[in-house]
Amino acid sequence: MTLNSTHILNGFLDRDISPLDRGFAYGDGVFRTMKVVNGLPLHWPQHYQKLVADCAVIGIVCPVAEILVDDLQHLFTPNETAVAKITITRGEGERGYAVPAVTMPTRMVSKSKYPQYAPLNFTDGVQLKVCETTLSAQPKLAGIKHLNRLENVMARMEWQNDAVFDGILLDTNSNAVECTMSNIFARYGINLVTPTLNQCGVAGITRQQILNLASVLNLNVVVDFLPLSKLLNADEVIICNSLYGAFQATKINHNELTETWQPQALAGAIRAQLKHD
Amino acid sequence: MTLNSTHILNGFLDRDISPLDRGFAYGDGVFRTMKVVNGLPLHWPQHYQKLVADCAVIGIVCPVAEILVDDLQHLFTPNETAVAKITITRGEGERGYAVPAVTMPTRMVSKSKYPQYAPLNFTDGVQLKVCETTLSAQPKLAGIKHLNRLENVMARMEWQNDAVFDGILLDTNSNAVECTMSNIFARYGINLVTPTLNQCGVAGITRQQILNLASVLNLNVVVDFLPLSKLLNADEVIICNSLYGAFQATKINHNELTETWQPQALAGAIRAQLKHD
Repeated sequence: MTLNSTHILNGFLDRDISPLDRGFAYGDGVFRTMKVVNGLPLHWPQHYQKLVADCAVIGIVCPVAEILVDDLQHLFTPNETAVAKITITRGEGERGYAVPAVTMPTRMVSKSKYPQYAPLNFTDGVQLKVCETTLSAQPKLAGIKHLNRLENVMARMEWQNDAVFDGILLDTNSNAVECTMSNIFARYGINLVTPTLNQCGVAGITRQQILNLASVLNLNVVVDFLPLSKLLNADEVIICNSLYGAFQATKINHNELTETWQPQALAGAIRAQLKHD
Repeated sequence: MTLNSTHILNGFLDRDISPLDRGFAYGDGVFRTMKVVNGLPLHWPQHYQKLVADCAVIGIVCPVAEILVDDLQHLFTPNETAVAKITITRGEGERGYAVPAVTMPTRMVSKSKYPQYAPLNFTDGVQLKVCETTLSAQPKLAGIKHLNRLENVMARMEWQNDAVFDGILLDTNSNAVECTMSNIFARYGINLVTPTLNQCGVAGITRQQILNLASVLNLNVVVDFLPLSKLLNADEVIICNSLYGAFQATKINHNELTETWQPQALAGAIRAQLKHD
């Protein structure tokens, strides 16, 4: 039965991955993580569009939407809230970096439990820390959610304290770029600033939705460099991803210091607009 | 029978990889590629030492040598020349970058055909091209052979011409760092220069062996930045890896130009010293 399965690989329930898969060998692929409600990922059209675009950057032809929707419908029941992860790799290949003349992309759709976010995250905000691991600049891959994620892993290894919700990643010039699993915004009056992602970072679809929503929220959006020093002086800091929507960051640890903010209403307004509550 | 098997995963012949393996999810692991003669990889102690060191950089405890040797001895017969690839990943984990409290590293040992290098590579040298894809700077991961290899894949996609043996990768300051599957040396009189690898690149064991051999070859070694302009003015350019040993580069294509060199004796002398002939 499909109900207890955890993934579908190339259409087969719970099949394992070939050791020749270039996703395993080189991280040669992309992925998305989504909140599933009513049997399909929330904001599925945006996720699928981004998946296709990310595949294109590295020269992979993404499977058509119908195939992925079919996989999703086999894994998820209409009444559950869960997490879907879709991974698309270049498929199998012999040893060596050269891409085979003919490739058949691997598609994996998996189901996992929806995280239990602490109720205080919604009312009182979350705590972030500034990571020592910095992001390297690679304009050819910036913005896409590829499978080369060792920097995120290394950054995430920097804390075990459960009170820290996510870690802020800086570039080598001390600009805030994103968090390990979230994008980031800083509000100054009516200006909502989010970092430029043309050198590093992942351009998540929730980030794009917040940019699109700004006028509804009576905010001007500014996509620009966001130095850490400027971030720490924001009126309000918001992080976002496709699972929790948006949270306010009310504490940021950097070096031995902690900046704090009072809880405000913007994150809740964003969640409501994005139907994440 | 083991003779036809292509890999051993965690001790099991031809077992496939779990979709929860962090090697697949994040490229969270390292690998080595080696020439096998007489049933074991050439220069195995150096390879194993490097595997342990690379694992340590990302916080993985490498399996003991005896286990890997046992896997190798199951896969390779004493009389064949073949390629062994050993991949060590952090093992399985639930979704998310956080490393599980307890992990069991995945080890994969695989066998593939030894490449048929053209006889002219040995006598007349090889052709390189300068890639447009540049390497990003990440000092935390520089030098190690991890599974985040999308830059190499993107660079390798830049040519289909079989006459090009490998592609030179530059950093963002136009310093030559390495090739997609090789390290690189440039000789100026009695000085043998190889790029510093503290920002990017993979420090292969053949590179280290050539550094160790230099005095035997009556050369001074210099590990330093190697601007492309300087590389193109070398008396001789050598590339190396653990499969072919060393080749002289007698043609380098950059933009629309091609630099050429006469065949010389150093690459052959290195191969002889490294028992790669």
